[in-house]
Formats: sequence, structure tokens, C-alpha cells
Amino acid sequence: TILVDVDGYKTAQINALAILDVGDYTFGKPSRITVTTSSGRSGIINIEREVQMSGKTHSKGILIIAGYISEVFAQDMPLTLNATICFEQLYSGIEGDSASAAELCALLSALSDVPIYQGIAITGSVNQKGEIQPVGGVTKKIEGFYYVCKKKGFTGNQGVIIPHQNMKNLVLCDEVIDSIRNGNFHIWAVKSINEAMEILTGKSFDEIILLSKQKLKKYLDNLTSIGQPSKEKEG
Amino acid sequence: TILVDVDGYKTAQINALAILDVGDYTFGKPSRITVTTSSGRSGIINIEREVQMSGKTHSKGILIIAGYISEVFAQDMPLTLNATICFEQLYSGIEGDSASAAELCALLSALSDVPIYQGIAITGSVNQKGEIQPVGGVTKKIEGFYYVCKKKGFTGNQGVIIPHQNMKNLVLCDEVIDSIRNGNFHIWAVKSINEAMEILTGKSFDEIILLSKQKLKKYLDNLTSIGQPSKEKEG
Amino acid sequence: TILVDVDGYKTAQINALAILDVGDYTFGKPSRITVTTSSGRSGIINIEREVQMSGKTHSKGILIIAGYISEVFAQDMPLTLNATICFEQLYSGIEGDSASAAELCALLSALSDVPIYQGIAITGSVNQKGEIQPVGGVTKKIEGFYYVCKKKGFTGNQGVIIPHQNMKNLVLCDEVIDSIRNGNFHIWAVKSINEAMEILTGKSFDEIILLSKQKLKKYLDNLTSIGQPSKEKEG
Amino acid sequence: TILVDVDGYKTAQINALAILDVGDYTFGKPSRITVTTSSGRSGIINIEREVQMSGKTHSKGILIIAGYISEVFAQDMPLTLNATICFEQLYSGIEGDSASAAELCALLSALSDVPIYQGIAITGSVNQKGEIQPVGGVTKKIEGFYYVCKKKGFTGNQGVIIPHQNMKNLVLCDEVIDSIRNGNFHIWAVKSINEAMEILTGKSFDEIILLSKQKLKKYLDNLTSIGQPSKEKEG
Amino acid sequence: TILVDVDGYKTAQINALAILDVGDYTFGKPSRITVTTSSGRSGIINIEREVQMSGKTHSKGILIIAGYISEVFAQDMPLTLNATICFEQLYSGIEGDSASAAELCALLSALSDVPIYQGIAITGSVNQKGEIQPVGGVTKKIEGFYYVCKKKGFTGNQGVIIPHQNMKNLVLCDEVIDSIRNGNFHIWAVKSINEAMEILTGKSFDEIILLSKQKLKKYLDNLTSIGQPSKEKEG
Amino acid sequence: TILVDVDGYKTAQINALAILDVGDYTFGKPSRITVTTSSGRSGIINIEREVQMSGKTHSKGILIIAGYISEVFAQDMPLTLNATICFEQLYSGIEGDSASAAELCALLSALSDVPIYQGIAITGSVNQKGEIQPVGGVTKKIEGFYYVCKKKGFTGNQGVIIPHQNMKNLVLCDEVIDSIRNGNFHIWAVKSINEAMEILTGKSFDEIILLSKQKLKKYLDNLTSIGQPSKEKEG
Ligand SMILES: [Ca+2]
Ligand SMILES: [Ca+2]
Ligand SMILES: [Ca+2]
Ligand SMILES: [Ca+2]
Ligand SMILES: [Ca+2]
Ligand SMILES: [Ca+2]
Ligand SMILES: [Ca+2]
Ligand SMILES: [Ca+2]
Ligand SMILES: [Ca+2]
Ligand SMILES: [Ca+2]
Ligand SMILES: [Ca+2]
Ligand SMILES: [Ca+2]
Repeated sequence: TILVDVDGYKTAQINALAILDVGDYTFGKPSRITVTTSSGRSGIINIEREVQMSGKTHSKGILIIAGYISEVFAQDMPLTLNATICFEQLYSGIEGDSASAAELCALLSALSDVPIYQGIAITGSVNQKGEIQPVGGVTKKIEGFYYVCKKKGFTGNQGVIIPHQNMKNLVLCDEVIDSIRNGNFHIWAVKSINEAMEILTGKSFDEIILLSKQKLKKYLDNLTSIGQPSKEKEG
Repeated sequence: TILVDVDGYKTAQINALAILDVGDYTFGKPSRITVTTSSGRSGIINIEREVQMSGKTHSKGILIIAGYISEVFAQDMPLTLNATICFEQLYSGIEGDSASAAELCALLSALSDVPIYQGIAITGSVNQKGEIQPVGGVTKKIEGFYYVCKKKGFTGNQGVIIPHQNMKNLVLCDEVIDSIRNGNFHIWAVKSINEAMEILTGKSFDEIILLSKQKLKKYLDNLTSIGQPSKEKEG
Repeated sequence: TILVDVDGYKTAQINALAILDVGDYTFGKPSRITVTTSSGRSGIINIEREVQMSGKTHSKGILIIAGYISEVFAQDMPLTLNATICFEQLYSGIEGDSASAAELCALLSALSDVPIYQGIAITGSVNQKGEIQPVGGVTKKIEGFYYVCKKKGFTGNQGVIIPHQNMKNLVLCDEVIDSIRNGNFHIWAVKSINEAMEILTGKSFDEIILLSKQKLKKYLDNLTSIGQPSKEKEG
Repeated sequence: TILVDVDGYKTAQINALAILDVGDYTFGKPSRITVTTSSGRSGIINIEREVQMSGKTHSKGILIIAGYISEVFAQDMPLTLNATICFEQLYSGIEGDSASAAELCALLSALSDVPIYQGIAITGSVNQKGEIQPVGGVTKKIEGFYYVCKKKGFTGNQGVIIPHQNMKNLVLCDEVIDSIRNGNFHIWAVKSINEAMEILTGKSFDEIILLSKQKLKKYLDNLTSIGQPSKEKEG
Repeated sequence: TILVDVDGYKTAQINALAILDVGDYTFGKPSRITVTTSSGRSGIINIEREVQMSGKTHSKGILIIAGYISEVFAQDMPLTLNATICFEQLYSGIEGDSASAAELCALLSALSDVPIYQGIAITGSVNQKGEIQPVGGVTKKIEGFYYVCKKKGFTGNQGVIIPHQNMKNLVLCDEVIDSIRNGNFHIWAVKSINEAMEILTGKSFDEIILLSKQKLKKYLDNLTSIGQPSKEKEG
Repeated sequence: TILVDVDGYKTAQINALAILDVGDYTFGKPSRITVTTSSGRSGIINIEREVQMSGKTHSKGILIIAGYISEVFAQDMPLTLNATICFEQLYSGIEGDSASAAELCALLSALSDVPIYQGIAITGSVNQKGEIQPVGGVTKKIEGFYYVCKKKGFTGNQGVIIPHQNMKNLVLCDEVIDSIRNGNFHIWAVKSINEAMEILTGKSFDEIILLSKQKLKKYLDNLTSIGQPSKEKEG
């Protein structure tokens, strides 16, 4: 069963091309990551880690995302956020940081309510500054997503976002190369989470950040209003 | 001894068709799940997990439910909820996420005070967006609940809610098929928690959500009033 | 040495007929459970568990009690309670949930300050809704308490509360049967914690709940008054 | 080296006759227990337990003391107390609950600032209601303290407090019996912590409780004044 | 792939010459450390430690940094800081405290927003007083960074900061010695974190501390404003 | 390399003569202990313990210090202190409580800002009442410090503080005895932390306590001012 969508827009949902750990064998199957955000003080919750299904480098990747989010959003206000990041229908554990760019994109979509095009999958890790870093198995991951799209039907807008450093290592098969040349399938090489988000959403990164800040401000106001009723009520 | 009810309405109680882990053998016996909710800050408490009787995927399922609840209810106010989810009279541990839809339904019943018809059992997992996902052993689970109802007496309204994706795999025995054809027993295939709750309660999902929000607002007011005495006392 | 009382009224103290784990052998000796309650935010503390002397199902039983208490008392105010539940002079660990009804009764006695008659022992588990559930070894437990009373002296009011579901399994010896027939010893079969409390205390359950709510309100006021000095001081 | 005092009054310090665990051999050497109390929210801290040198039943004993303290002092105000209980110069770990009465006495001395006569040692456990319970090795413990006093010099006021239930098991040597008969050494059998404190301090238990409540009220005021400066300062 | 920059200025980023643990073999490769800071109460977060990839002495080094930061910045206000320290693209774990001076420099850069020249790498440990302490493998580390600069292109400003105590042990190869003599490469021996920061940033240490205090005051004001809305809003 | 100073005054720094655990062999080398203090709520942090490099009795010693500090300083105000205690440049773990007097002295120096003369080293444990208790290996420790001073140069003011109970066990070599007789080196036998601090600092203990209280009051005011803006701002 293919569990991912490869067309349409969804908020807080993304197709990551992660390395899945299924015992001796690893492969680059697209996985659906979902994120929820809400008012609270728990920060970013890696659901896989809570149940001991997250490897050390995957966990490190989520901590790096948390560092990035704090740097971007918690300079002029504290972060009063609960965000849960989940690999849906994954029962085998997740290793490596090659989904961290995907996880950050899904989180930014959840925060901004800007939907992500499900026809574009992404692989790559991200550092605390939002720069994309290279990962392994990119050729296999691109081909994997290509065949999922082929089976479910090409839209002409589908493709994969990869780290710019991995561009030089690609050795794609002829079918995928032809499809890219014909404009039926796409590869985007990116240097930053900014670029990736703009490709995935069609919106400017500035707008996404602005919308996210508005939601985080609302979450903060929710908590502030508990301790401090508004003047209107008291007047 | 059959420990479940198969008729009548009960709040915060449901018959789940989960895979029980009894050593080498697993089976699809109906289990009674109960939920309590109250004013507090502990969030959703998986009682089985607190005593190391919850497998990783069962625990992941409860975390996904918590993500869903936060997304739905904690946008305009923080969640100030204690909810305890319990498999009653289960001493052997619980594995798998095939009861997560049942657990979420029981929690929504507890939050809204809308009762659930005990003649309908449910199997299926749920994702952070409230979508129902397929599970294993559905045929065996349906037949298991059918025979419990048969022993305790058919009401004509009994049946099982299953994930829509599992519909194509069903290979039911003749007796159950006949009973379904005759309208004595039912199978409902659902895509979302919304559909499941409407079948289990006979109420609209919007009403259930509204009632739940009212209770959560009351719980929040309980906590707010500690830090902030009401105007009446001060006037 | 027999460490329990079998006559007189005591608050927050009960004779439970639990299964004690003493290595290879288990038996149904009466055990004294005591409870303290006080103003605080720690909730229900299972002392045996704090020192790793509580088996998984015993611990689950206490969590179920906590769920029940939250459902009953924390709808219109948060619970600001410390309650410590202790098996006095027990050094060998406790397993099973057959004392959970006893533990809940002792807790309700502590909360309401309504004393429990020490001549009545109890066995049975309780679910989150306050319903009594069947347990094992009931015959042996009844006979065990009978002989303790016999040694310490019958009062005519002594006996054992058991789950109604266990009534059909009793195979008591002639002496106990005769004693029951003569009205020297009693067996009460109950369906709910409400019934059990009324038998143990001679008070109505509604009164016990009302008194408990008053104490919990006092505990809450204690904490509220820290953050908010009374008007008198400020005026 | 004998590390204990056997004359004079000291606050928050007591000679306990505990069973010390030194590998294969256990003995009843007097040990100095000290307690500190201060303003805070950490409750009763068992220093031995913090460093994994406290056996399960010793730890249970301290939790029972905490239950007693909460019951006695936290009905009309929350407990805002840090108390550290320590076996001074003990490097080998402590097992059993036979020092729990001593620990509670030292804690009450610390809370009330009422000094304890160092010539009287104590053995016995205490339950959540403040009742003294029997312990093992009482004969050996009494003789052990007798010889320490003999070596350091009899004052005529020295002796040991024991649980009343242990009185019937005493098989003391002739020298100790003679000394007791001559009024040079004493044994007090007690039923409650109240009795023990009155013997150790020469003060009424009511006064000790009153003084303790005053200190606990002061500790609470310390914390309250942080969040809420008094009107006087602001006026 | 060489993952570090060796020219230009970057805030909150530094090239550390740490001992990396790759099984049997350790080496002095330059590693990029990044830091984020934000408003919060979590203090200094060692990301490697959170995922069990930090050895004991590395973890001790970060705790010493936290002690230094508290001593310098938390005398007249509490520290309300989240800071995440991360070895980017390091998957093998980090051992030893020879990067602690680098980590503290990156943290001070993040706090002050004063950028660090990426052409200068640093090795050395720091104590709670900000004094630099000697480390091992300094010769190898200097040569390692020299060859990275050579490959990426000399700027004439590049070099390595080392503990003054290590100066006497250096046995550099002729090429590096010549390069230093010719002013193409530099070695700075320092006694304190103050000296190191001035070399790395070209700014006075007093200015860096002042800017850091301003940011920490802003972070504190962010949190204070939650509990206490400003007068302006209320007026 | 000798890493300690043996002359001059330093605040929050002391030379402890502890037993270091280096596998099979233990020795009495002087170790530099540093302490930082700051505004906060974390209490006394044993850095060695945080990284699992502190043995049980060393950890117990720090908890005893915390008890002493609470007793002395947290009667009329809560303790709002972070203090980090660190053995600098120690990578091998620390066992035993023979440095606890040193640790408490360094902490009191940090709290009072009264400097400690670095030419005087100290060994000894301290109880919750501030009394000095005997330790092992005193002869070896004195001689060890004597030779460090000899190598670095005698000042005439150097020496070692030891527990008074250890005075009778000293078997010093002729050179050290002669040096003491000639007034070139000193041994001070102390009964209390008060005496030790006066020797180390040349200040009265009362003044040290007074200065410490002033700093702790400042730390408390820092935290209080967050929740409660000063009147000036509001006026
Ligand atoms: Ca959303
Ligand atoms: Ca690009
Ligand atoms: Ca309810
Ligand atoms: Ca349907
Ligand atoms: Ca009571
Ligand atoms: Ca009945
Ligand atoms: Ca005191
Ligand atoms: Ca008596
Ligand atoms: Ca920054
Ligand atoms: Ca220099
Ligand atoms: Ca200082
Ligand atoms: Ca002296």
C-alpha cells in the first residue's frame, strides 16, 4: 500500500525521503510526516523519541530544529509552543538526520498555516542556522519517489528537493533523466530552508515567517490571559 | 467471563477490538476502555504506559491522539486537562495502535459527555489529522465481537466500525455475512474519527466538538480562578 | 503477631484482604492500609511504588483510583491534594489489584473524615467508574479474616465485603457458613464503591462525597491564599 | 571511635539504634541522625536515598514520616518545607525501618527547636498515624547503648526508648538489669511518637507541635512574601 | 568534504579543534560549532549530551561554561536563557574538554551578536573563572587546520588560538613554522577567554560583555512582560 | 604540571587535599576546587555528580553541605541560589567526603566574596551542623602539600587545616616537623567550619555570614523583581 499523497496541498504534512531502518535493510521510501502545533510550554516533541523509536542522529536533528526555531522566533518573546512531529504509520524506528529539513518544513507549514504541495518530496538535513546539509542515498530516494508518482499518476509539477551539495553525486537512470528533461518531473537543489519552503508552498519565506510569528503571538496571548485577565473584563 | 457490555449507552466507555499480548498468542477480544477527564495540567495519561504495560506502538498511538487533541482544542486557549485512558481488567499488556481510534472516541465522549452505544465496537488507528488508518486482523476481530453479541443477545443495532482501507481484505464466515445481510449485525467502514463518532453516538461531530470545548473552557476557568479570584469576591 | 484491629472505628484506615507476595507462597492475610491527605499538588502517592515494592497491576490499580478521584472531584475545581497510600508493616511487596477497592475506601474515609468500622475487611478491584470488579482467592481471604476475628473475639458485626461477581464461586467451610447463618459473621456482595463505603461507615455515600468536597475545597483555598492574600489583610 | 554524644541537649540531633548493613554482619550501634529544616518546596529529603545508600524499607519509613507530617501540619496550610535527614558519618548504607521513630523525633526537634537529651537513644518504627510499631534486635540494641554510656560515663538519666510491643521479648544481661533496677539506666516502652518526644525533650507534645506550626507558618510566609510583598512595605 | 569556513565573519559559529572519537582512532579535525540563544528558562543545552553523544569530560566542560556564564551574568538578574550548543554534522560523539573554550566563545558571540572570524580556529579548555587550561594534541591540531586553510586558500589572517601552557610543547613541521615566520599563518597563546574573544572578534571583551548583558536583559523582559503587562498597555 | 596556586588570595577557590581515585591507586594530591554562585533556583550543583564522576560518599558530602547552607541561610527567606562546585581539571572521578569542608569553605567564600589564602590547603569532612569530622590519609596529605609548597617556594604562611580528631594520628617525617617547628609551615586543627574559614580568610566568621546573607538577599530580590516590578516603574 502506498500511504502518501502525491498531489494537492496539505498543511502541516510533507513527504520525506528518509532512510528507514527495517533490520538489515534500509531504503528511501517516502514517509508522511505530520506536525501539530498548539498553545503550551512543552516545545518541540519528537513522537518517535518519546517511544524510543528515534535513533541518536534523528533525535539530534530535531534538537537542531528546536535551536533554529528558538533563534528565529524567541528573541522578542518566549516560545509558548507545543509541536508534535510524527512519522505516520511508521512502526520500525527512524535513524539519521536526512529528514530534518522535511520536519522543519512541515513545522513551518503548521505554524504559518501555509499548505505544502504534496507532489514535492524532500531530503536533506538542516543546521541551527537553517542551512541545508548533504545526506546519503539521494539517487535512490529520487528514483523511489519518481516511481511512486508514476504509479499514482504524474501531474507535471512533481519532483524532489535535495541539498545543493548532493547535486554532483547524482547518477539517475535514463527514465528519470528523460522525465526531468521533458518537464514531467523536477529536481530542486537548495542551500537553505528558505528556498525549500518557497518551492514547497509557492509563498515567500518572509510571509511564512510573519504568519508563524502571528500564530506564536496568539499562543503566547492564550497563556498570558490565564494569569492576567484583560482590562476589558475588569473594567 | 465476558467483561463488556454490548447494549446501552455509556459515557467515556468503549469496546475496542485490540490485539492483546498474552505471550505467544494474540487475539482480538473486545476490551473495555474507559477514560476520565478532569481539570489539571497533566495532559493525556496512558495508564498502561505508566506501569510499563504499553508497547511502543500503543504508546505512539496515544501520543498521536494527544497531538490531534492539541491541534483541535488548543489553538485559542491552552489545554488544562487531565485525561486518563485505561484498558480495564487487562493485566497482560497492550501492543499495537489498532485501538487508537477507540481510545480517541472514548476521550471525545468523556470530554463532551455524549454517550457511546456499547453495541458497536471499533478497530482502527488514527493519525494526527483524525484520519483513520488500516490495521491488521480485522476479519478475526469482527467475528470475535459477533460471537460475543450472539452469546449476550442480538439487539439488531450491533456491529463493528473498521477502517475503510480494510474493507477490501474482509473474508468473513457465512454466518456473519448472513447476519449482516439480514440487518442483524453491521459493519461500518470509516475514513475519519468524525464519521466514527457520529455512528457511535448518533450525534453530529460538530456538536461533540462544541460540547468538548465547553468542558475544556470550564477546566481552564477552574485553574484561572485560583490565580485570579472572581470580581465578586473583590468588589 | 496480628497487626490489625477487628473492632472500633478508625478514620483513613482499613483492613484489606490482598494477595501478599512472600516469594513462592501467596496468602490472603488481612493488611492494614492507612492513608493521609493534605494540601498540595502531588496527587495520589503509592508509597509502595515509590520504593519499588509495588507490582505493575497494583500500581495500575492506584492509577485507576486516581482517575476515579479526578472524575468525581476535579470537574469544577482542580485537585490540590497530596494523598499517601501505605500498606503498614509490609516489607515484602504487593502485587495484584485486589486491594484497590480497599485503598479507595480508605482514601474516601481520609478525605471525608468519616471513620471505617475495623471489623469489616474488604477485597475487590475497582474501575475508573467506581464499579467493583471480581478478584481471585476470595474464599481463602474470607476464611482468613474469619479466623483473625475468631482469635481476637467476635463482635457480631464483623465480616467481609466482596465483589458481587465472586459470590457464585464461594466454597466456604462449614464453620464459616454456620457462623454466617447465625449472624455472627457477614458477607456483603457489592457492585460499586458507593455500596462498600455505606457498609463500612454506616453513612450515606452522598454525605461522604460532600464532606470530601469540603475538605478538597479547603485544601484549594490553602494554596490559593498563598498567591492571593485575603482582602482583610489588604483593606 | 565512638562518634555519638551520650549527655547534654542538642536540637535536631538524636541517637538512633538502627540496624547497620556492613556486608554479612549487622549490628545495633548507635548512630547520630541530624536534620536540617528550611524554607522551600522540596519536602523531606532522605540524604541516604539521594545517593543510593538507603534500602527499600528505610526509604519507605521516610515516606511514612512524610505522610505523618503532611497529615499533622498540612491541613490548613500547604507545607513549604525542606528537611534533610542524614545519618552522619555512615558510609555503608542503611536498611530497615527501625530508625523511623528516631528520624521523626529529630525532625520534630528541628521544626520546634526543642532540644533532645542525647543520653536517651531510641529504636522503633512509626506508622502514618504516629503509632510506634515493633522492630527486631531490641535486646542487642539496648545492651549496645548501655556499654557506650558505660564507657563514656553514666549520668543516671540515660536509657533507651523502645516500642511497647517489644517489651515482652527482652532478654537483657544481668548487668543491664541491675543497672536499670538501681536507676542508673532506663528503658521506656512507648506506644506513640507523642510519648517518645515527651521523654526525649521533657516538653509536652502539644507545645512541640505548636512551636513546629509556628516555624512552618514562618517558612510559608517567607515564600508568600516573594510573590506578594506586604502592604506595609508598599504603603 | 571540508565542512568548515576558513574566511569571513559569522555570528555564533566557530571552528573548534576538538578530539573526535571515531572508534579506535582520534584526530584533530576542525569542527563547526554553532550556538543559538533565545528567551527561556532551560539554560545551556548541550545537544550532543541530550542524545547520549557527549562523553563525561565534554559534558563537564559545558557545565563549567554554565558556571562561568552564571557568575558573569546572573549576579544582578536571574538568567532567563535558552542556549543550544551543537557540533554540526558530527555523528560520532565528542569526548574531552578541549573544545570548551571554543564553545564558550561561540556562546559569547551568540549572546553579543559580535561575529567571529572563521579563519581562526581555537583549542583549549576553560575553567569556571574563564582561565584557559592546557589540552592535548595541540601540534597535530595546528597542522590540521593549517592544511585545511592551505587547501581552501590562505588569507594571511588565519591561524589557531591555543592555551599558553601548551606553547612550550609545540613541535611544528618546517612548512608551518615558515608560514608563521612569513606572517601567512598565526598562533596565539592565551591565558583567558577574554584574550581569545578579542583575537577572534577584533572587539574589546568589555563591549562583548556589555552587548551580552543587553540581550540577556531583553530576554528577561520578554518573560517578565508575560506575568506583568507594561503600564503603557494598561494606562 | 602542578595546577594549584600556593600563594595569594582568590575568591571562590581553594586547595583541597582529597583522595583521588585513579584506578587501583589513590593519593592525596592538592586539587583546585572552584565555586560559582548566582541568582536562581537550582540550589547547589555538584558538577562531578552531573557527569557521573562523583562517588556516593562524595555526593553525600555535598548534600550535607546543602543541608548546612539551608539551615544557616533559609530560615527567614527561601534560598534562591545556583551554586556550582567543581574540581577543576579532574578527569578521573572523586570519591569520599574528605573534601567536603574544603567545598563548604569555597562556597562560603563565593557567597561572601571574601578571598581565601591559596597557601593553606584543607582536608576534612563536615556534618550538617558545621562540625568538622575526621578523615583518612592526613599524614600523606600534609606531606603532599608540603612538597608542592617547597617546589613552588615557601612563603612562611603556608600550611594545612585538618580535623582536630586527626591530630593524634599524625606521623610526619622529620623535614615537615622541622619546618613546622621553624614556623615555615603550619598545621591547624579545627573543630568547626567557623574556625577553618577564619584561618583561611583572616576575617571573622560572623562577617562572612553577614556578607553571604547580603548576597543571598540580592539574589532573592532579583527573582522577586521579575514577578513584581518596583514601585518606581508603577508610580
Ligand atoms: Ca494548525
Ligand atoms: Ca537553488
Ligand atoms: Ca466526565
Ligand atoms: Ca463511510
Ligand atoms: Ca485527616
Ligand atoms: Ca449488594
Ligand atoms: Ca533549625
Ligand atoms: Ca508508656
Ligand atoms: Ca542570535
Ligand atoms: Ca597572550
Ligand atoms: Ca562571585
Ligand atoms: Ca582549634
